[in-house]
Amino acid sequence: MSPAPNENKAKITTPSDREIRTERIFNAPRERVWKAFTNPELITQWWGRGNKVVVERFEPKRGGHWRFVEHGPEGPNGFEGRFREVTPPERVVQTFEWDGMPGHVIVETMTLEDLGDGRTKLVNVSLFHTAEERDGMLHSGMEQGMNESYAALDKVLASLGATAR
Amino acid sequence: MSPAPNENKAKITTPSDREIRTERIFNAPRERVWKAFTNPELITQWWGRGNKVVVERFEPKRGGHWRFVEHGPEGPNGFEGRFREVTPPERVVQTFEWDGMPGHVIVETMTLEDLGDGRTKLVNVSLFHTAEERDGMLHSGMEQGMNESYAALDKVLASLGATAR
Repeated sequence: MSPAPNENKAKITTPSDREIRTERIFNAPRERVWKAFTNPELITQWWGRGNKVVVERFEPKRGGHWRFVEHGPEGPNGFEGRFREVTPPERVVQTFEWDGMPGHVIVETMTLEDLGDGRTKLVNVSLFHTAEERDGMLHSGMEQGMNESYAALDKVLASLGATAR
Repeated sequence: MSPAPNENKAKITTPSDREIRTERIFNAPRERVWKAFTNPELITQWWGRGNKVVVERFEPKRGGHWRFVEHGPEGPNGFEGRFREVTPPERVVQTFEWDGMPGHVIVETMTLEDLGDGRTKLVNVSLFHTAEERDGMLHSGMEQGMNESYAALDKVLASLGATAR
């Protein structure tokens, strides 16, 4: 069962001048999507879109920190943040910053909605300190990168489903 | 030479609904104030207002991290962040978060102005993600805590001046 083509791309909107909202449907039950987002071994399989990802720190609980380093063709890129809230299997609130712009911190609120038919809707709202930082992210190629990550995540979810059988 | 009484309290204003601006004059040259803000040994002498402060991490350069733990009568309190910019002796931009509200990140822009008469004006602007977080800080007793820290800093600056003679 393949998803309809329009479900393969994340839907990106801007609810305010400091926010980016993304929505994406996955063909997997919510528990499985949750696992792919919170198991470091699984994260390394999709987060880097084919690039090696080293999970240096990952403490998915209130106050815990996370730090990933993606090793791409142009060298390493570090990303890090801290968890505000981790509520399995439906909600994570965390901060996000890229080493290339240290101290420019985004608050990401991710919710996973069980669609009741074996599919899961992911909604993420990113809040920036300023409109300029939000616009910078929109023009950074984030849409392509996100769609590549989520396409890799589709494959991880499919393989987890095969294992579960 | 004592400062006029009104110079002993920080002047606190709210330039926007997500900002707090504070201003405080110190009876010390800018280089000395800069040193008291960027030397970990000196920081422990005033930051905790008499409470023990452990500097767990302090890397005052772009992308560097900092983390202080204050040991007060009610137990330890951790504070941490990351430096965006460190421009001696006049400007630091850094993030700030308290362990009690992890992931609620403030951007602090501190400038030190040489008043030309041996005194230095400190201006700090704190930018919050939301007006609610800003209001929470205003009602947290920050004004008293800040004035206690700056009074302790006055003493450190005076003793540094005595050493310099």
